[in-house]
Amino acid sequence: MASYLTDIEIAKQVELEPIEKIAESADIDLDSLSLYGKYKAKVDAKQLDALKAKPDGKLILVTAISPTPAGEGKTTTSVGLADGLNKIGKKAILALREPSLGPVFGMKGGAAGGGYAQVVPMEDINLHFTGDFHAISAANNLLAAMLDNHIHHGNQLGIDARRITWKRAVDMNDRQLRHIVDGLNGRTNGVPREDGFEITVASEIMAIFCLAQSLTDLKERLGRIIVAYNFDNEPITAHDLKAEGAMAALLKDALSPNLVQTLERTPAFVHGGPFANIAHGCNSVLATKMALKFGDYAVTEAGFGADLGAEKFLDIKCRLAELSPAAVVVVATIRALKMHGGVSKKELEPENVEAVLKGLPNLERHLKTIQETFNLPVVVAINKFPLDTEAELEAVRQACEVRGVEVSVSDVWANGGAGAVDLAEKVVKIATNDQILTHAYDLNLPIKDKLDQIVQNVYGGNNAALTPAARREAKQLEALGFGNLPICMAKTQYSLSDNPKLLGAPENFEVTIRSLKVSAGAGFIVALTGDIMTMPGLPKVPSAENIDVDADGNITGLF
Amino acid sequence: MASYLTDIEIAKQVELEPIEKIAESADIDLDSLSLYGKYKAKVDAKQLDALKAKPDGKLILVTAISPTPAGEGKTTTSVGLADGLNKIGKKAILALREPSLGPVFGMKGGAAGGGYAQVVPMEDINLHFTGDFHAISAANNLLAAMLDNHIHHGNQLGIDARRITWKRAVDMNDRQLRHIVDGLNGRTNGVPREDGFEITVASEIMAIFCLAQSLTDLKERLGRIIVAYNFDNEPITAHDLKAEGAMAALLKDALSPNLVQTLERTPAFVHGGPFANIAHGCNSVLATKMALKFGDYAVTEAGFGADLGAEKFLDIKCRLAELSPAAVVVVATIRALKMHGGVSKKELEPENVEAVLKGLPNLERHLKTIQETFNLPVVVAINKFPLDTEAELEAVRQACEVRGVEVSVSDVWANGGAGAVDLAEKVVKIATNDQILTHAYDLNLPIKDKLDQIVQNVYGGNNAALTPAARREAKQLEALGFGNLPICMAKTQYSLSDNPKLLGAPENFEVTIRSLKVSAGAGFIVALTGDIMTMPGLPKVPSAENIDVDADGNITGLF
Repeated sequence: MASYLTDIEIAKQVELEPIEKIAESADIDLDSLSLYGKYKAKVDAKQLDALKAKPDGKLILVTAISPTPAGEGKTTTSVGLADGLNKIGKKAILALREPSLGPVFGMKGGAAGGGYAQVVPMEDINLHFTGDFHAISAANNLLAAMLDNHIHHGNQLGIDARRITWKRAVDMNDRQLRHIVDGLNGRTNGVPREDGFEITVASEIMAIFCLAQSLTDLKERLGRIIVAYNFDNEPITAHDLKAEGAMAALLKDALSPNLVQTLERTPAFVHGGPFANIAHGCNSVLATKMALKFGDYAVTEAGFGADLGAEKFLDIKCRLAELSPAAVVVVATIRALKMHGGVSKKELEPENVEAVLKGLPNLERHLKTIQETFNLPVVVAINKFPLDTEAELEAVRQACEVRGVEVSVSDVWANGGAGAVDLAEKVVKIATNDQILTHAYDLNLPIKDKLDQIVQNVYGGNNAALTPAARREAKQLEALGFGNLPICMAKTQYSLSDNPKLLGAPENFEVTIRSLKVSAGAGFIVALTGDIMTMPGLPKVPSAENIDVDADGNITGLF
Repeated sequence: MASYLTDIEIAKQVELEPIEKIAESADIDLDSLSLYGKYKAKVDAKQLDALKAKPDGKLILVTAISPTPAGEGKTTTSVGLADGLNKIGKKAILALREPSLGPVFGMKGGAAGGGYAQVVPMEDINLHFTGDFHAISAANNLLAAMLDNHIHHGNQLGIDARRITWKRAVDMNDRQLRHIVDGLNGRTNGVPREDGFEITVASEIMAIFCLAQSLTDLKERLGRIIVAYNFDNEPITAHDLKAEGAMAALLKDALSPNLVQTLERTPAFVHGGPFANIAHGCNSVLATKMALKFGDYAVTEAGFGADLGAEKFLDIKCRLAELSPAAVVVVATIRALKMHGGVSKKELEPENVEAVLKGLPNLERHLKTIQETFNLPVVVAINKFPLDTEAELEAVRQACEVRGVEVSVSDVWANGGAGAVDLAEKVVKIATNDQILTHAYDLNLPIKDKLDQIVQNVYGGNNAALTPAARREAKQLEALGFGNLPICMAKTQYSLSDNPKLLGAPENFEVTIRSLKVSAGAGFIVALTGDIMTMPGLPKVPSAENIDVDADGNITGLF
């Protein structure tokens, strides 16, 4: 490995370019910038209207095999690929998600890339950045306060306090707030009821924020949020509470995408970051569209494995925003393939070609989905680790050859863009825009059929099995007019199935749909499988204990 | 009245100067600026070290009579006075508090001044501004999450969950969160206990933020926060939870004061905003010190009436930061004096000299405190309303003449700085720095004696009456070594006494001290009298319902 420095140490060694220079390099109008210090800026979302006539660049989606505790490095690969594209003379721009404070203070591991493939200033990006998530929390909690205030002051809308679906939000890993009873202590202090908090990245507002195509669209979506049902079983919306105007006012600045740079000065839009289990898990539509306007190549990533993030990127976001990737990169590591092949985390170091072979079906299943279900060209990026052996790498190469898929071993952690030159060339070769995106399901199918299609065409299983509750909910949602919305699967990221222990490429399984609920503002139906956590907890020794700042403001221990 | 436009309409008519120009006009080094858009910037707190040798300007404190629902206009007068000082050729700079989102969405009424005496951009200042309050909420809630996480993972420190003193915070009026039970639903979801939320401006972190003199001082104060007591009755601190480093990292950018401008382009530091009932209620020490370094006159205000805000400004903040005002301005309105004289809010319009005369003792009591207890020169500013009559104004003039105090009728709402030229001249005349600040009590007195001194020397009452619980707490705090801290009174703002219904200048009263608790990080003992609300609620029709934003991002209905 070229370096034993930590990510933050590497980041500090590189002198950043003033953000105006980065904007200039991407032909972004300086008048459209709002600076946040010297190295961060928001680019006015209205710029997209001004640039309507400009042709879009090519969209490159980075996804991955099913994640394991061994790590894949999807963000790192995305950053390295964009740097690599610039190195071979293409104009590439990144579109990435913003990190949440919860994981930053919980488990070690940032969302700004790693090694020599990072977006910077990483301390800012990993802490408050430009305040977008705070604005989302505030809008979320204003709606909650207005809801309970309405009930407190007489409940004219007849809200059934037992059927409130809106939760409060905080951008923190705080299990203590998962299940609470609030409004206690007498009639001046609200109305007692069961309640709970989600982490901000799990809020429907985060999903809305990432799907909104304009401030007007944002406000309309906010108004459609269903916060509760009344005693007649009718949905009560944010609009009924007259909340969407103030919520949109809180979000208006946040809606403009944030511009930063990679360590190699590639422009990067880092904007929005919904959970990929409960929501669609990719950066804002506006950031992706801006990257496409200003870059010949726009490199973006979707959360978790291709079954979750990429499926939702392609079936929800691309459908809504009329986008179609020119190429898909599936990131894998030898270590993760070994885990899919049955090896435990402690035994990953020795060469073990057999385990790699046993783990390959996971990769192959995802490749099949991209190629056959979504009809897109794909390349595999093996994110290299120091102890990977040639025989292990060769096993992956051969498996891909069988499918006619190119493989590139990238080494961006240690070498930045130079470690992804081969990957970049292969991406350019396949990104011809000759293939047209197809979807895993037709929007007009009944909800049950759409779920079956996802299980069959993306997970490789037999069908979706709805619990009686979910069947009832499907019927209700169709009756309420939500039947033609896309599906947002809330499923474990660790397995193609709904059982996190089934690694590799399981077959002949059903996916149990426990519950169906509509995110009417985001515009999708969330299908809950298993126990999906919308509020993480801190580990026994949270990484917050090691974070510090000196008298000069230098942060240490961030990662 | 010169105009019937709303505050936001007036603000929009004025073309703002780029903030770099405002900085230049105040001789602020442009390299020390971090821009937040075109009209907001943070000035690096470290600039104060660089400017140590530069002599300070004169400090002008703006305070008021006891507030009534009729309104006083303290911020508006402060802004107008600073503009007025500049109009008569002095170099004046403002230091003001940041508004809280809670009141913005609750009752109509901003904290950025009004009419032609505003700080701008008012929408930004009233909404997220530069994110300081969000950073404070995050630091507050990180500490809470680490505390409950510690208990969840085995409680090695032996924290007594019934004696947790740390609350969670949200910058929202949300009565539903005042009293909650959290950690419900089984052993994976925390430990059930009683809990509650405060509004962010009531958090001890807000007080610490405003009293910290450097990043190092901030971190040390954060570490001293007492979050709970263990089963041996010993205090458990944020330092015991290893939380202060990460908390300081969250606050490091926020700690630098924010620079904005008035409608007349006077530079204004708007930074920090602790509640004046539970905390000390004035902007950050760093902002005041910066205003003193860059201005010949630094105009600042303290929350509520002189009994609360000014007392704490003088006894807590000035003592800590070694500041001494050169002059004090006491703001009064004819309408408010009438209310102190017994007139109801509906009957304020007709001329009523008798009511003014009956209300004057409230003003006189505050003047006596400033002159005799604190030994400072004072001028009365009557914030003019359209229906004030000459006879009513004359009654105030005569009462002040008796005390040898000058009076100025200011008209800054309608005329900006031009409406405060006379006030500015009178302030300059008395601000000779010849008088040395004395305090209401000696720090070395026992807690009970300090409380008595405040009641006698500031409120005009007889003594403090401690409940048995408060007596016990006083003894404990002295035993723990906190006996020599200043006192932060948590008292109703509506009366000089602890009974909000006693307007005017009550006499022969006791102030009941219900409870004493230490804010060890802020460095004061909070004395609670009556029911002090640390989490407001929304009114039946919250102003949020009328706030909106159009497709171009223009906000309406803010005020």
